[in-house]
Amino acid sequence: MIRRTLAVLLVCAFRQGAWAQSPSEMKPVTDRLAASIYTGSSMATLRELTDSFGARLTGSPAYQRSAEWAVEKFRSYGIQDVKLEPFTIPAGWQRGSASGTMVSPISRTLAIASLGWTPSTPAGGVKGSVVMISDVSPEKLKDSDRFRGKILLLDGSKIFEEGYVKALPKLDAAWPVFQKAGALAIVLTDREKNNVLNAHDMLWGARLLPLPGAEIGMEDGKQIMRLLDNGPVVISLTITNETSGETKVNNVVAEIRGSERPDEWILIGAHLDSWDFATGAQDNGAGTASVLEVARVFASLGKPPRRSIRFALWGGEEQGLLGSYAYVQAHTNELNKCVAVLNTDNGAGHPRGWKVEGRKDLKQAMQPWSDGLLKDLNGGDLSLETTYDTDHGPFILHGIPALDLWVDESKYFEIHHKASDTIDKVDVLDFKAGEAIVAVTAYMVAQSQSPIAPHIDHASVGDILKDAKLDELLEHVGVWKP
Amino acid sequence: MIRRTLAVLLVCAFRQGAWAQSPSEMKPVTDRLAASIYTGSSMATLRELTDSFGARLTGSPAYQRSAEWAVEKFRSYGIQDVKLEPFTIPAGWQRGSASGTMVSPISRTLAIASLGWTPSTPAGGVKGSVVMISDVSPEKLKDSDRFRGKILLLDGSKIFEEGYVKALPKLDAAWPVFQKAGALAIVLTDREKNNVLNAHDMLWGARLLPLPGAEIGMEDGKQIMRLLDNGPVVISLTITNETSGETKVNNVVAEIRGSERPDEWILIGAHLDSWDFATGAQDNGAGTASVLEVARVFASLGKPPRRSIRFALWGGEEQGLLGSYAYVQAHTNELNKCVAVLNTDNGAGHPRGWKVEGRKDLKQAMQPWSDGLLKDLNGGDLSLETTYDTDHGPFILHGIPALDLWVDESKYFEIHHKASDTIDKVDVLDFKAGEAIVAVTAYMVAQSQSPIAPHIDHASVGDILKDAKLDELLEHVGVWKP
Repeated sequence: MIRRTLAVLLVCAFRQGAWAQSPSEMKPVTDRLAASIYTGSSMATLRELTDSFGARLTGSPAYQRSAEWAVEKFRSYGIQDVKLEPFTIPAGWQRGSASGTMVSPISRTLAIASLGWTPSTPAGGVKGSVVMISDVSPEKLKDSDRFRGKILLLDGSKIFEEGYVKALPKLDAAWPVFQKAGALAIVLTDREKNNVLNAHDMLWGARLLPLPGAEIGMEDGKQIMRLLDNGPVVISLTITNETSGETKVNNVVAEIRGSERPDEWILIGAHLDSWDFATGAQDNGAGTASVLEVARVFASLGKPPRRSIRFALWGGEEQGLLGSYAYVQAHTNELNKCVAVLNTDNGAGHPRGWKVEGRKDLKQAMQPWSDGLLKDLNGGDLSLETTYDTDHGPFILHGIPALDLWVDESKYFEIHHKASDTIDKVDVLDFKAGEAIVAVTAYMVAQSQSPIAPHIDHASVGDILKDAKLDELLEHVGVWKP
Repeated sequence: MIRRTLAVLLVCAFRQGAWAQSPSEMKPVTDRLAASIYTGSSMATLRELTDSFGARLTGSPAYQRSAEWAVEKFRSYGIQDVKLEPFTIPAGWQRGSASGTMVSPISRTLAIASLGWTPSTPAGGVKGSVVMISDVSPEKLKDSDRFRGKILLLDGSKIFEEGYVKALPKLDAAWPVFQKAGALAIVLTDREKNNVLNAHDMLWGARLLPLPGAEIGMEDGKQIMRLLDNGPVVISLTITNETSGETKVNNVVAEIRGSERPDEWILIGAHLDSWDFATGAQDNGAGTASVLEVARVFASLGKPPRRSIRFALWGGEEQGLLGSYAYVQAHTNELNKCVAVLNTDNGAGHPRGWKVEGRKDLKQAMQPWSDGLLKDLNGGDLSLETTYDTDHGPFILHGIPALDLWVDESKYFEIHHKASDTIDKVDVLDFKAGEAIVAVTAYMVAQSQSPIAPHIDHASVGDILKDAKLDELLEHVGVWKP
């Protein structure tokens, strides 16, 4: 026991150096940051963001306006180095109108919406018998003549039964089969009561589906399935979307230069874009407002921390972390100076702490800071879970230590990507506590003598991805090679 | 203690007579009824009803088709005496299309639907600034010039804060004020996440509102309210409904003649009509299918019970119990022979027993039957609660003993009047248990020597209504005079 404790102490002494600040020594500054957040007006910032532009769909005019607004916000805090950093997505898409009707055996209006990044139906819409598909494995789609002139009802509860990671490659292979066979459109069933729809697309990377696609409410989908037991069901769909070719999207990046090691940097990021059924208050208005608020309190410090802090608001997250991925590609030559990435995009739930994305060494390094500075903010927990579901993802592929804000998500999926993701669901205490945890952690990481944890090599990243069963998906979408 | 027990025994002996059948003596027959329901196909009947016609809105072609279908169902069970009994509603109404847009300060599609029994907007729709109204008391509406050319946003959470009973008279007084002032339309906020809407109308009795009216999802309503804090909000509404003048609606009534006292009758009823966001599986397809199923098992008995049983499927329940009220008016001269009314319209939840609608004597009379015959069907509980929310209502106004099937409603209001009221929510065990409770109770009431409880006089009815705080509402809507 004694030896083990001694060993830990020695490791700490080695890593931080004898001159390193302890949690209690940093506390006067981190307390100022936290207090400024608690008494600050970030809730008003979030309200401004969510009520001023409408939904911030990647590539839309509303997204661009919100990006310009964010630039002005950073500047209003006294931060000079603020810029729009453009990247390109393969296709721009904006929702128009969508209507669906059951034509026979009974006449009913159907609860549908266009899937994201799908084309319009031909003028006048499409009408056809429904063919139900509950398995999109290639061997099940061989008899593709039966799709000609039909509308394909994809049973989402079956197709995604094994999870998105397994379903995506099969679906990617199925689309050209459906298109070549002459299917009119696809309709994917949703999963929630009251025909509540979850906005989403089908392809990774803001690429346009090769045929029109709609999602349909759970109850209406089930009715079609029941009626199919008895005989043919004919439905019609009329969908009008605006699509464009390659489209420029702007990330927003601001920087506060470090006072002692300005070439070393940490990044605090959140995606600015949202889906478009609501105004993305928790996904990810809360994260966006948090990044702005943390920038504000850092800008108000008399002296910045040792290292530089970059504040990033990403576009294209909802289509596959496209903005953060583009940033990593564009800044490859300075990633070696990136000490850590802090991301916030899990909703504004009651905070828990940080996800360390599979890094046991990072968890160990964080522990004294979590205990010493974050516990009282209800942010002292550390999770080893690894995900590639938000913008820390592209950074962990390069071995960079990443922290993703960990909050109670029990209510998050009630509103996620739905019409209910609006500011009235945001609890101000939870929201501000999350912001304080980000600010305090950022200060510690930017200020401490040694980096919180080293970069890890490609093979070690691969091990983490494999453990998390993410490697195949990431290879499939082209962002990872083992 | 002894004297009290003796008194109860004497009352029982007096009421039932020495020759009356006990629960255990009736059990062989009631067991046959229950067993036939458990092995029967009422779930298929419910599926046929809910998947064959679409929503069964009162006065719609789909309602009429479902009524004709029900007639055929009764006949298919061997019941000869089946008829459509028409009544008239002041206005027919069918939903067309409805769209709403926020024009400024931001441009957004709004989640709206037409309120029931409201007219269309003028061609091209209406566009106007929003005036928020959270109190419709007459004194708050005096400065009515401010409504001219405006769209009035009624805050449902405030207006209905004291309950429907108190709100309705105020609203009834407010409509002509809004209309005369030249308001363009009213928009009522709904109360559930994801902009989920609850189909409803604003006036009792299938009367047309004097100006266009929409309901708006909770999140979209709240956004408008927040934006109104900062300045004007302009929205546009385009609503197209079909309306007609006085419209004939058919109740469906079938009868199995009693074997010994055919002039005495009990009535088993449920409303056939539904709201139109879904297919009314629990409200009240389940009740309708239950009445049909109970008719089937009674028709299959070798010998009917002593008294006649009428099976009634009502129209117009959702607009104010209009079908059952019309029936009571049309059959006033034989109500004295109506021994009891059994109603089922509280959803297909896990059964509890019966509501006795404020009648302590009825509760006492039911107790031995509940204990002896219904407990094993999970239907042994008795509630004294009095409501005028479904079709037992018009009968209790005449002092007739009424039983309203009492079930667990904890999940009912998740689907009530919403797009989610579809057959996939119906649990077959709960549904059939409810049917069995109705059948067993009906047999007992139709077969027992003495009526289960006497009619009570007008003053006693008044006392029950007053206790339940229903008297003022019922006076207001014109169905009750003290």
